Amino acid sequence: MSSSWGRNLRVSIFGESHGSAVGVVLDGLPAGIPLDEEALGRFMARRAPGQGAHTTSRKESDLPLIQSGYYNGYTTGTPLCALIQNKDTRSGDYSEMQQLARPAHADYTGFVRYGGYADPRGGGHFSARLTAPLVFAGGVAKQVLSRLGITVGARISSIYGIEDAPLDPVGVTSGELEAICAKGFPVLEDARGEEMLAAIKSAGADGDSVGGVVACCALGLPAGIGSPMFDGVENVIASLLFGIPGVKGVEFGAGFGSAGLLGSQNNDAMRIEQGNVACDTNNHGGILGGITSGMPLVVRAAFKPTPSIAKEQRTVNFVSLQNAALRVKGRHDPCIVPRAVPCVEAAVAIALLELMLEGGNQNGFASLAR
Amino acid sequence: MSSSWGRNLRVSIFGESHGSAVGVVLDGLPAGIPLDEEALGRFMARRAPGQGAHTTSRKESDLPLIQSGYYNGYTTGTPLCALIQNKDTRSGDYSEMQQLARPAHADYTGFVRYGGYADPRGGGHFSARLTAPLVFAGGVAKQVLSRLGITVGARISSIYGIEDAPLDPVGVTSGELEAICAKGFPVLEDARGEEMLAAIKSAGADGDSVGGVVACCALGLPAGIGSPMFDGVENVIASLLFGIPGVKGVEFGAGFGSAGLLGSQNNDAMRIEQGNVACDTNNHGGILGGITSGMPLVVRAAFKPTPSIAKEQRTVNFVSLQNAALRVKGRHDPCIVPRAVPCVEAAVAIALLELMLEGGNQNGFASLAR
Amino acid sequence: MSSSWGRNLRVSIFGESHGSAVGVVLDGLPAGIPLDEEALGRFMARRAPGQGAHTTSRKESDLPLIQSGYYNGYTTGTPLCALIQNKDTRSGDYSEMQQLARPAHADYTGFVRYGGYADPRGGGHFSARLTAPLVFAGGVAKQVLSRLGITVGARISSIYGIEDAPLDPVGVTSGELEAICAKGFPVLEDARGEEMLAAIKSAGADGDSVGGVVACCALGLPAGIGSPMFDGVENVIASLLFGIPGVKGVEFGAGFGSAGLLGSQNNDAMRIEQGNVACDTNNHGGILGGITSGMPLVVRAAFKPTPSIAKEQRTVNFVSLQNAALRVKGRHDPCIVPRAVPCVEAAVAIALLELMLEGGNQNGFASLAR
Amino acid sequence: MSSSWGRNLRVSIFGESHGSAVGVVLDGLPAGIPLDEEALGRFMARRAPGQGAHTTSRKESDLPLIQSGYYNGYTTGTPLCALIQNKDTRSGDYSEMQQLARPAHADYTGFVRYGGYADPRGGGHFSARLTAPLVFAGGVAKQVLSRLGITVGARISSIYGIEDAPLDPVGVTSGELEAICAKGFPVLEDARGEEMLAAIKSAGADGDSVGGVVACCALGLPAGIGSPMFDGVENVIASLLFGIPGVKGVEFGAGFGSAGLLGSQNNDAMRIEQGNVACDTNNHGGILGGITSGMPLVVRAAFKPTPSIAKEQRTVNFVSLQNAALRVKGRHDPCIVPRAVPCVEAAVAIALLELMLEGGNQNGFASLAR
Repeated sequence: MSSSWGRNLRVSIFGESHGSAVGVVLDGLPAGIPLDEEALGRFMARRAPGQGAHTTSRKESDLPLIQSGYYNGYTTGTPLCALIQNKDTRSGDYSEMQQLARPAHADYTGFVRYGGYADPRGGGHFSARLTAPLVFAGGVAKQVLSRLGITVGARISSIYGIEDAPLDPVGVTSGELEAICAKGFPVLEDARGEEMLAAIKSAGADGDSVGGVVACCALGLPAGIGSPMFDGVENVIASLLFGIPGVKGVEFGAGFGSAGLLGSQNNDAMRIEQGNVACDTNNHGGILGGITSGMPLVVRAAFKPTPSIAKEQRTVNFVSLQNAALRVKGRHDPCIVPRAVPCVEAAVAIALLELMLEGGNQNGFASLAR
Repeated sequence: MSSSWGRNLRVSIFGESHGSAVGVVLDGLPAGIPLDEEALGRFMARRAPGQGAHTTSRKESDLPLIQSGYYNGYTTGTPLCALIQNKDTRSGDYSEMQQLARPAHADYTGFVRYGGYADPRGGGHFSARLTAPLVFAGGVAKQVLSRLGITVGARISSIYGIEDAPLDPVGVTSGELEAICAKGFPVLEDARGEEMLAAIKSAGADGDSVGGVVACCALGLPAGIGSPMFDGVENVIASLLFGIPGVKGVEFGAGFGSAGLLGSQNNDAMRIEQGNVACDTNNHGGILGGITSGMPLVVRAAFKPTPSIAKEQRTVNFVSLQNAALRVKGRHDPCIVPRAVPCVEAAVAIALLELMLEGGNQNGFASLAR
Repeated sequence: MSSSWGRNLRVSIFGESHGSAVGVVLDGLPAGIPLDEEALGRFMARRAPGQGAHTTSRKESDLPLIQSGYYNGYTTGTPLCALIQNKDTRSGDYSEMQQLARPAHADYTGFVRYGGYADPRGGGHFSARLTAPLVFAGGVAKQVLSRLGITVGARISSIYGIEDAPLDPVGVTSGELEAICAKGFPVLEDARGEEMLAAIKSAGADGDSVGGVVACCALGLPAGIGSPMFDGVENVIASLLFGIPGVKGVEFGAGFGSAGLLGSQNNDAMRIEQGNVACDTNNHGGILGGITSGMPLVVRAAFKPTPSIAKEQRTVNFVSLQNAALRVKGRHDPCIVPRAVPCVEAAVAIALLELMLEGGNQNGFASLAR
Repeated sequence: MSSSWGRNLRVSIFGESHGSAVGVVLDGLPAGIPLDEEALGRFMARRAPGQGAHTTSRKESDLPLIQSGYYNGYTTGTPLCALIQNKDTRSGDYSEMQQLARPAHADYTGFVRYGGYADPRGGGHFSARLTAPLVFAGGVAKQVLSRLGITVGARISSIYGIEDAPLDPVGVTSGELEAICAKGFPVLEDARGEEMLAAIKSAGADGDSVGGVVACCALGLPAGIGSPMFDGVENVIASLLFGIPGVKGVEFGAGFGSAGLLGSQNNDAMRIEQGNVACDTNNHGGILGGITSGMPLVVRAAFKPTPSIAKEQRTVNFVSLQNAALRVKGRHDPCIVPRAVPCVEAAVAIALLELMLEGGNQNGFASLAR
């Protein structure tokens, strides 16, 4: 298997970059959720290419065509399927390299995995194009979460080592989150954003590319969501985030940084604030023992640089098993991080909805006996 | 749910720190695997407490009692259950703080999650004691993998910011891996190990604790294992690793470091070596598009400092909702990283066995028609 | 959740009777399977309406539009999605009874389940229309199984108590199976088929309907497929068959009949035949302990009469909670059994492919170490 | 895999007939359920052997030893594991026939499935002994359901074709159910019970055995539980029931009988009764479209005759592939149906608890927003 995920909310993604359509089935959505299709479209537009100097010039309308599960403006509770048709694909750009492995791409691993039968055009099912249905699903999840008072928002945390200013992980408000998300280049300090854009532009001009880190927050989560061991909030979120092409690391709260701290520095002191349990700091990122604490959920995902670069690279022909040289042609973002921001937001939203849909086991017998 | 994991190999872990036993059921193991019980015992001993100055003085025999699934020295193919009895538990140490949340522990989140019914003694099901059955399961998985020519080995990569020398992620051999694992304090450069031990000792003397990073390699994996999107090697490994108490980050290959690189730096050039596809460098950590490349698999997990520290901390009584102060008593490692090494190794081994057990979909129709 | 199924082969069905399309995602198909689209079309035509006096006059082209997972005539190994567009829907026929529960339909239970948000037109997601994607999926599964030497074929066993002649459950050949399946009215003895057709016609003329039983065989299954307890062949097949609208019972081999036998009658004596283990009789239906024996697999599914009848029925308005009377209008088969035959065949084929795709646990370590 | 089941409530059963213990892990139980251990013991005693002339003389104390998930008299919400130790096993009885397939047993199929490594003693993991942990799990489930107002009760419906009087599937009360369950030989009409007992005794005296049918009702289920297609109430219950050794058929409501009815006979007329939707008859067995209607749930399971009979049978040596003759020695019930009654009750209770634990998708958004 490959592209099915979830227990309470089953997500099944299909499609190839240059096939007729990509899409998603969402099974397990609650019934009676009104969808704001315009907001969905705006969210998907944040991922769509062709928006700025830092993105590929490929144009996609990316209008999701809902096939099922949506009636009279409300979710029906039965599977919701959305199709996004592929247009404006120029397969010719790829034909010549079907036997040459593009370094850092899945050409060779996919060839072995699928015995040479996978659709090679544009990366096929491995393409970042497959994040379009993920973002659609995430957009739906965000709207459900929003009705439960939960806001999910992501931003660029760093690109090529250039760090944005930190967001206060204790006091961040949903208004702040939404304001950053609404930006064309979602960073806190626009000056750092300019530096990042310059780095992207410079890499692109050089036929090269850069990576970066996306940070995501979720606010309004009740305490007590998730489970110890394997169904913890971190496990569930990470199992989705690593499905976004290019993600090489995931951390929560202080993450890798906490490995260099003393316990007395890392432990978040607790206090009662307006009758609720709160923490002075948020190194735990809103999760303890796999379960939400009620503090903001903080997660970061590291993206490698776009593997497709114009520079010549040494590689192999994996059919003839000979050494070769390759220059990747075609249209490619010199940095995928800006378009990855809504993908991370989507993945986190889907994971949180999955956890919120957990049934009678949460909160003990009380919820079961409702 | 909480403590069940896996699709082809189902792992179900149960128990509480101070209950009668902890244990695990492994459902889906292939039949006919001879188990080396002595090697299993040695592997479990690497996790057991009481081995050195850096570990708690609690003594456990931790002898796994196999209840089923094992007959005449071979796995039967039906569920293998092992029990590890709890002995030498001093519950009295914990009784007074059942209503006080130990900062960075799951006391409060578990209280909300389970409505106050969870066993609070020694952390109950949240305790690191639950890694004993995980390590047992991992030890079994390691033995199966070993028969397939796959070696899994972990080591301490850093503690409190003190970094061990790097292991060559391209040329590392199984002999090297095993040699490091066999050390009492598994680092490459013992001098750095001494520094780490000093940092642990100093923190402990101070009533404080330190965190660190565990790195794990797997060698001998064939190319073509795993899947794009949600059943990728990273997704599967991360979904287990985040089940180990204290893990706050997981990265593969160059991980978060790749976010600061140029594409031309991060992309691993490929070449044919003795008729096989190989890479000059291994920033991809042996995984591209969720699928193994045949290069060494490299994964790192960040552990936060032990939350239990002797220093006074500000916290809350989560029943009366009042502020409080707390000094955690009892026996606690000032650093969990050394004992976490076999836990990481176990989690990676289980995840890899799960992936190796994937059926007819791997390698196309060929394997199905076998 | 509702409409996702399977572990090795994940089937996700979506759509409503009068929405824009119904369809299915198949995730986990092996790569490299050539699909005979014409044979697929013929198989789907066996389910399509409008073929005879005994079926509804609604016309559907039911041409599946493959969206993904299929390239250059072969499955790619990544998810295969097929859409079947809905045409020729006359929703007006249904509008007046949205608040009246049609007896033996899911109107009331679906209303409660989905809080009134489910698409009520033509039964929505509960419609037998949803068996079209199931049959598509089954047609694909049949083609994969056929390459492994496995034939699946179903037929009408009885209608309104009129029994067809029994098929020899020991000696039946794939040629015999295929010959029956190829009939317009798939029974062994056409004379009994004529009686059944007369019963259907008579019930229809009366504004009434009749039920029946579908029997299905699978030949060529190797011994050793399946598992004891919960992943047995019976469990897996039954979990799919009960997803076909109208199925109220499932039995294997002698089934309910075996409950009235002596052990000495029911036990199938075994013998060596041409070097293989075989049985003289086949009361066990090819499955012992959840695992295939190598004898023909025999399963029967009982279908209730079509719930939609023209006769007046007493019912309720489930919104106003008042008693009411109802005459179901619209086009309805007086007997769903003939069109259910390929549905049963499809469900059994999908279940068997799921079991054949089971990985390294089958046949012990040998298959793992391949 | 084999012996793990469930999504919201994960059941993992382990053990072999003559190993050290059998047991079960229940993951996903709500926290805070007080367990009545005495009632559990009484329920398990209904399955235990050695109670009457119709059962084997093997004695088991079958006292479940709870290892985890239970603290201070309440479930903790974390995995509950119970062990039942094996005593009084006489393996010698079985040793001579390890290569001879007992007809209608899983000896041969298990041999192929597990490559000869399965524990052969007493049927190993295929033994009906494995229903002891199932019954334990079902006893726990029954207690949770009982707190939700749901009663589950099973009885003998027929043995060797001798039918008990029917239970009114519309008006049956929980008191009536419980009264039948409390009987030593649970039938409605004791006179028919005497005939059944005579048939069992006669078969046993003859070295033969008989089969039968167990019927089970559940009362108090709310309407709206379950889902269309693959997570329907029938699918979920059947997927468990076929895990009980000897079950060859499962039907709901009128079941196979409905296949011989007219629609006007089978459709259950509906009416408002005390403000609730009710039906005059209950051919649908409390389930429509996979979803509960609020009417009594009615399910029947057909059991084949005990395969172990003293009469000589023709069989094979599956190692040497030679014909052979066999007389099964050892202690065996001439009819497993009486002891199967609590097994069916347990399976239905577990399935219903699984469905009741379904999360936010039930009843639309209302339950999510609670």
